[in-house]
Amino acid sequence: MSTPSPVSITAGDGPGQPERTPELEELYRGFEKELLVPLWTEIGDLMPHAPQSKALPHCWRWSDLLPLAERAGELVPVGRGGERRAIALANPGLDGRPFAAPTLWAAIQYLNPREDAPVHRHTQNAFRFVVEGEGVWTVVNGDPVAMRRGDFLPQAGWNWHGHHNVSSTPMAWIDGLDIPFQYFADSTFFEFGPDEVEDTSAPDRSRSERLWGHPGLRPLTHLQPTPSTPLLAYRWEHTDRALAEQLALEAEGYAATVEPGHAAVRYTNPTTGGDVLPTLRTEFHRLAPGTETAGRREVGSSVFQVFEGTGEVTVGDASWRVEHGDMFVVPSWQQLTLRSEAGLDLFRFSDTPVLERLHQDRVEITPTSKENA
Amino acid sequence: MSTPSPVSITAGDGPGQPERTPELEELYRGFEKELLVPLWTEIGDLMPHAPQSKALPHCWRWSDLLPLAERAGELVPVGRGGERRAIALANPGLDGRPFAAPTLWAAIQYLNPREDAPVHRHTQNAFRFVVEGEGVWTVVNGDPVAMRRGDFLPQAGWNWHGHHNVSSTPMAWIDGLDIPFQYFADSTFFEFGPDEVEDTSAPDRSRSERLWGHPGLRPLTHLQPTPSTPLLAYRWEHTDRALAEQLALEAEGYAATVEPGHAAVRYTNPTTGGDVLPTLRTEFHRLAPGTETAGRREVGSSVFQVFEGTGEVTVGDASWRVEHGDMFVVPSWQQLTLRSEAGLDLFRFSDTPVLERLHQDRVEITPTSKENA
Amino acid sequence: MSTPSPVSITAGDGPGQPERTPELEELYRGFEKELLVPLWTEIGDLMPHAPQSKALPHCWRWSDLLPLAERAGELVPVGRGGERRAIALANPGLDGRPFAAPTLWAAIQYLNPREDAPVHRHTQNAFRFVVEGEGVWTVVNGDPVAMRRGDFLPQAGWNWHGHHNVSSTPMAWIDGLDIPFQYFADSTFFEFGPDEVEDTSAPDRSRSERLWGHPGLRPLTHLQPTPSTPLLAYRWEHTDRALAEQLALEAEGYAATVEPGHAAVRYTNPTTGGDVLPTLRTEFHRLAPGTETAGRREVGSSVFQVFEGTGEVTVGDASWRVEHGDMFVVPSWQQLTLRSEAGLDLFRFSDTPVLERLHQDRVEITPTSKENA
Amino acid sequence: MSTPSPVSITAGDGPGQPERTPELEELYRGFEKELLVPLWTEIGDLMPHAPQSKALPHCWRWSDLLPLAERAGELVPVGRGGERRAIALANPGLDGRPFAAPTLWAAIQYLNPREDAPVHRHTQNAFRFVVEGEGVWTVVNGDPVAMRRGDFLPQAGWNWHGHHNVSSTPMAWIDGLDIPFQYFADSTFFEFGPDEVEDTSAPDRSRSERLWGHPGLRPLTHLQPTPSTPLLAYRWEHTDRALAEQLALEAEGYAATVEPGHAAVRYTNPTTGGDVLPTLRTEFHRLAPGTETAGRREVGSSVFQVFEGTGEVTVGDASWRVEHGDMFVVPSWQQLTLRSEAGLDLFRFSDTPVLERLHQDRVEITPTSKENA
Repeated sequence: MSTPSPVSITAGDGPGQPERTPELEELYRGFEKELLVPLWTEIGDLMPHAPQSKALPHCWRWSDLLPLAERAGELVPVGRGGERRAIALANPGLDGRPFAAPTLWAAIQYLNPREDAPVHRHTQNAFRFVVEGEGVWTVVNGDPVAMRRGDFLPQAGWNWHGHHNVSSTPMAWIDGLDIPFQYFADSTFFEFGPDEVEDTSAPDRSRSERLWGHPGLRPLTHLQPTPSTPLLAYRWEHTDRALAEQLALEAEGYAATVEPGHAAVRYTNPTTGGDVLPTLRTEFHRLAPGTETAGRREVGSSVFQVFEGTGEVTVGDASWRVEHGDMFVVPSWQQLTLRSEAGLDLFRFSDTPVLERLHQDRVEITPTSKENA
Repeated sequence: MSTPSPVSITAGDGPGQPERTPELEELYRGFEKELLVPLWTEIGDLMPHAPQSKALPHCWRWSDLLPLAERAGELVPVGRGGERRAIALANPGLDGRPFAAPTLWAAIQYLNPREDAPVHRHTQNAFRFVVEGEGVWTVVNGDPVAMRRGDFLPQAGWNWHGHHNVSSTPMAWIDGLDIPFQYFADSTFFEFGPDEVEDTSAPDRSRSERLWGHPGLRPLTHLQPTPSTPLLAYRWEHTDRALAEQLALEAEGYAATVEPGHAAVRYTNPTTGGDVLPTLRTEFHRLAPGTETAGRREVGSSVFQVFEGTGEVTVGDASWRVEHGDMFVVPSWQQLTLRSEAGLDLFRFSDTPVLERLHQDRVEITPTSKENA
Repeated sequence: MSTPSPVSITAGDGPGQPERTPELEELYRGFEKELLVPLWTEIGDLMPHAPQSKALPHCWRWSDLLPLAERAGELVPVGRGGERRAIALANPGLDGRPFAAPTLWAAIQYLNPREDAPVHRHTQNAFRFVVEGEGVWTVVNGDPVAMRRGDFLPQAGWNWHGHHNVSSTPMAWIDGLDIPFQYFADSTFFEFGPDEVEDTSAPDRSRSERLWGHPGLRPLTHLQPTPSTPLLAYRWEHTDRALAEQLALEAEGYAATVEPGHAAVRYTNPTTGGDVLPTLRTEFHRLAPGTETAGRREVGSSVFQVFEGTGEVTVGDASWRVEHGDMFVVPSWQQLTLRSEAGLDLFRFSDTPVLERLHQDRVEITPTSKENA
Repeated sequence: MSTPSPVSITAGDGPGQPERTPELEELYRGFEKELLVPLWTEIGDLMPHAPQSKALPHCWRWSDLLPLAERAGELVPVGRGGERRAIALANPGLDGRPFAAPTLWAAIQYLNPREDAPVHRHTQNAFRFVVEGEGVWTVVNGDPVAMRRGDFLPQAGWNWHGHHNVSSTPMAWIDGLDIPFQYFADSTFFEFGPDEVEDTSAPDRSRSERLWGHPGLRPLTHLQPTPSTPLLAYRWEHTDRALAEQLALEAEGYAATVEPGHAAVRYTNPTTGGDVLPTLRTEFHRLAPGTETAGRREVGSSVFQVFEGTGEVTVGDASWRVEHGDMFVVPSWQQLTLRSEAGLDLFRFSDTPVLERLHQDRVEITPTSKENA
C-alpha cells in the first residue's frame, strides 16, 4: 500500500532524551518504517508518577437530561437495530466518545407508555438505577422485574433482556454498563432476541426476588457461587432502611458508619458476598444533614447520581452544587469531597472490581479540615 | 513402670492374616511392648468399604425432652461452673458420651423466668434454634438478640455470650455445637466472662440485624469476608416466606424446589455466601402435604428437629413417625427418606462443611419408588 | 431390647453442680433412660480452658522399629486382605488404638525383595517418607514412582496404588495417613484393585515428575487446581538443596530461615501453592549445628521423624535425645523445643490443614531463653 | 469557555435509526451541547456481534528489530528520564501508539557493555524474555538475576529494578508489560530509584531462585499467597526439559500434550499455581516437526516471539513464514493456526488473566482440516 506509515515520532527535549542529530532523525524514520516507537519519547505520557486520567470531572444536570430524553421520546423510535432509547454521558476529556469515564458507560434511558425495548443479550455487564418514576418491567430471561423509584436492578452479561412499559406514563432511568471497558478489551459479543418481551405480566415481585430476596437464605437448588448476582432487584425499602439503621446506630453510640454522618451500603452478590457484577461496583451513600466527608481519592473511575437532597461536591479542582438526578464523574485519583445541606442521598457506581481483581487498587484518605468546613 | 502396656493385639483369622504360630505371638508381644499395632489386624475396622458409623439412627421425642428439661429447671441452678442448663442427646452407639453423632452436639436448653446464663466464650461454634416459645435474649458481645419461635441464631466460636430471660415464663430451645469435633481435634479454648449479661435490654431487633439483615446489602464498614456469619438472627418470617415462595413457584411451573414438593433453604454467611459457621451446616426443609423425598445418603452426620407437621422418617433400617419437636440423627452414609402427612417442616444441621473443606464429601441419591409410596 | 441403657451419669461436686438430692438422682435416671447427658457434669472434660489432648508425648526408636519390621517380614505375608505389612505407632494415651495422635496414623512399612503390596484405593490421604534404602516403586494409577532415601511421596485419597520391590534387598519406609481422622469422621471408602501392580518397570523418574517436576512450570493440559498434588515424588536432592540454600543465604546476611539456624520447607501442591493433601501438612526442617528453636505450641497434632543428625527434643514435660529414624509425636498445644548437636534433619507431618480450613488454628511462640541453652 | 463542544453526532441510516428531520438534527445539537451521545448511532461500533479489534495482525522481523536496536545503542544513551533503551512494537491499527495490542506492550530492549539502566519502580507488571545472548543482570529489590538465552524473568509491579550489563558485549532482549492496559485504566504510579544498580555482583543464581526454585517446595518464611510470583527467573533448562518430556510422554503413548505434536507450559506463581502476574499470562509452546495446530480463537490479545525453528503462522487473514526472533500479534477473536517445519519453539504472552478474572474469557477451537494441510 502507498499509505504513509501511521507511526510518527517526534524527537523530544528534556531529561533522558538523546541529542537531536540527523543520525537520530534517520533512526526515528527507521523506527517509523518498521512500526516501532521508542519508550523514551513516550514515557512521560505513558508512565506518569500518578494516574493522569484524560477524563475530566464533570456534572450533568437532571434538569438538562430529562427534557432531552423526553424530546427523544417524541422523535426517536425504539426498535431493532437501535435497540434502546439511551443517551450517554460523554466525558469532555474523552474525544467526544459516549464514555462517562474511560471504563464506564452512563446513560439516561426513556420509554414511552406501552412501549417495548426489544430483547437482546450482550457480554457487557449492566444495571439500571431508578431515580424517579415507575411503570416499566425489565424482563430478564423471561422473568419480569418491576422498576420503581430507588430500586437498583443489576443485569449481568449474556442474559436475555428487554424492557416493557405497562403504564400510561413514560419512564426514565439511568443505565450503567462496562461498555467502554469491554470495547477496549475487545471482549464484546451481542445477540438479538425477540422484538417484544416474552412475558408482559407485571408482578409485584420477580421470581428472582422470590428465590433470592431473603436475607442470609439460599435456595438449595442454587449452591454454587456465580460470578454475578442472581438477585435481579435491590428494592429501595431495604436500601433506605439499611442506611437509616446505620445512622440510628451511630446516634446510639455504636460504630456503624463509614465516618460521622456518612452511612453507606454496597450492593452484593448473595452467592459470594462480593460485588454484584464482575466489572462494576455499586453503592448507595447517605449523608446526614450538614455532613462533610473526608477527602478520598482512589484508583479507578466513579459515577454518582444524586437521589435526594442537596449538597456540594468537589472533585479535584471542580466543584458543583448538586440536587436530585444530577450525575457527576470522578476520574481516577482525583480527590472527592461531599458536603450535604439538609441531607444527601447518592447512588454510586465504579470500576473498582477491575482494579481490585488485578491488584491495581489504591486509596488515599485526607481527613476533613474542620476549620474550613 | 510396671503397669502393663495398653496395647493388646489379637491374632486374627481370615484373608490376609498370617498363620497363628508361637513366633507370631512373640512378634505381637514385641509390638505391644513398643506400642505398635499392625495394620493387618485392624484394617477391617479402620478401612471399611464404605463408612460404618458407630453412631446409630435414633429419635428423641419432644414429649420426653421437654418434661425432663422442665424438671431440671426445678432442680438444677444455672451458674458459673455448670454454665448452662443444657441436656445433650447421647447417641446409643457412642459409649454414653453426650454426642448426638461423632462430630455433633445437640441439646435442649432451658431457662427459668428472669434467669441469666452467665457470659463465657469458647472456640466451639454454636447455634440455637427455637422450636417454640420466646422471652429470652441471647447477648452476643453485648448485643441483645431476641429468640423467638422459628428463629435460627448462630453463635460463632470465640464470641462472648450469655442468655437472659426477660419474661415471666420459662423458655426451652435447642443448641447445636461442634463440641465432639473440637474435643476430638483437641482445639478447644474456653474463657469465663461476667456472671450476668452486660445489657439486659430487650430490643425487637439486634444491632447485628440492623447492620446485616438487608438482603444483598453490605455495610461499607465491613467489607472483608469473615469465617462465620456476622448476622446473629435469621428470623422465622423470612425462612417461612422463602419456603412458601419456592412451593408457590413450583406450583406456577418454575424450577425452585430440590425435588417435587420439597422446598429448602440453607442459612448462609452474607460475607461469603457459604455456610454460617466453619464446621456446621444449617438448613430448613419444608415438605408439602403427601410428599416423599428421594432416598439420600451422604458422608457426614446430620441432626434434624421437626418444627411443624407430621410424617414418617426412615434412616437406614430405622423408621419413626415424627411430630413437633422430635429430634433424630442420621449417621454418615445411612440413607434418609422423609414422607410428610399434612405437611412437614424440619430444621437440619450437619457437619458437611468439615467434609467439604477437606474434600471428603460424597452424596448418593436413590429416586423414590413411587409404586411403594 | 432388655439391655441396659449405655448412658450413666454421675452426680458431680464443685462449682456449678446442683445439690445431690434424691430428686436429682431420679432426674439423672430419667436422663439415662432417654439417652440424655447434662452439660454441667461433662463441661470440665469437654470444654477445657485450653486443649487437653488425651494423646501423650512419646518417642519410638528406629532401633526398635526396624528389627520388629524385619521380623514381620519373615513371619507375615503381604497379600489381599491384610493389604500392607505396616506396623503403626499406638499413642500410649489413646486406648491402644493404632493412632499416633487422635487424627494421625504413622507406621513403618516393610517389603521383601521382589514382593508386591496389592493394588487398592481408599479415601484416606497418605504419603510415604523414606528415611533410608531404596528399591521399591510405588505404582500410582499405573505410574511407577521410585522410592529412595530422603524422598517424600504423597498419595492422595482415591487413587489406585500398589508397591513393588524390584530389588534383591528388603526396604522399609514410613507411611503417614489420616486414617484416625477419617475413621472419626465416618468418611472412609475402600476398593480392591489387582493383586499385583500393573506396571513393573522401574523408571528413574515417574511420568508425574516428568509432567510436574519443573519449578514454576505447569503443563497446559492441566490448568485447574486440584485438591491434592499431582506431583508424586519430591526428591531428596531438591529438599536438601533448598535447605542448604536457606542456611547459606542466612550466612550471607539475608532473611531466609524461620529463626537463626533453622531452615524449613513445606511440601506444596503446585496447582495451588497450598498443602499437598487436604488433611495433612508435610514439612522438612534442618537445624544447623548447635541450634535451639523457640518453644512453639500450636493447635493440632504432629509427628516427626529424625532423618539425620542428633539432638534433644522437648515436648511438654517429656524430653528425649533423638537420632536417625526416631519418631516422636507432639500432641495439640504441647510446647515443642528442638536442640541440635552436630546438626539435625527432621521430617514432620501434621493435621494443620484440618484446623486451618476450619479456622481452629492457633500458634504460640516462646522465645528461647538463651541463658539456659 | 468559548471552545466548541467536543461532541459531534452524525445522524445515521439503517435499521433502528430515526428519520432524519430538522427536529432530529436540533435534538442532536442539544445532545452535543450537553455532552451527550445516543446509543443508537454508536451501537454498531460499540456492541458488535463478536469482538472487532482495532488491532491488526502483524509480524515484526528480528532481522529488522535487532539492527535498529543496535543503532539506537550507538545514538541513544540510557539514563534518568528516558529510563530504558526500549523500542516498542506499534500495532498498525492503533493510531501509531506504542501498543502491540490494545492492552499489551512489547519492546526490544538493548544494553551496551558495562551499561546500567537506572533503578525505578512502577505499578505496571513486566517481564523479560531472552531470545539470545547473555551478560545482563536485572537487579530486583537488590537481588541480581542473570538473564540468559531462553530465560523468562517476571517483574511484578511496584518492585525496584534496574539492569546492569557486566559483560563486554551488548545484549538485547524483549520486554512485555501491561502499559497500555494501565494507561487505559488510569492506574499507573512511578518512582525513581538510584541511577545505578545497588548490587553489581553477577551470581549464577539469584537469591529468589535459591529460595523459590525448588519444585513443590515452599520456604516456611513465606506462606501467604502473593498476587505475583516471587520466583524471578524461570530458566531455559527447565522449560526445555518440561517440553521435551511432554513430547517424549506422547511418543510413549501417554496424554501429555495439548494436541498431537504440541507441547506447552505455562509459567506460574508457586504461591498460587496461577499466572505469574495479575494481568499477564506467559507460556512457552513447542511444535514437533511437521505439526499443525487446530485453529484457535480466544477473547483477548496475544504476542508471540519465535525462539527457535521455522514455520508458518496464520492469524485471521494474515499469514507469515516465521523464524528466530520474529514477533507477531494475535488480536482478540482472530483465529490462530501454527505450522512447524523442522520444529518450532514459541514464547507467548497475553492479557488472558484480565479477561478470566472478569469472566470475559471465551475460547473456540476449530479442528485442523487434515485434507487441506
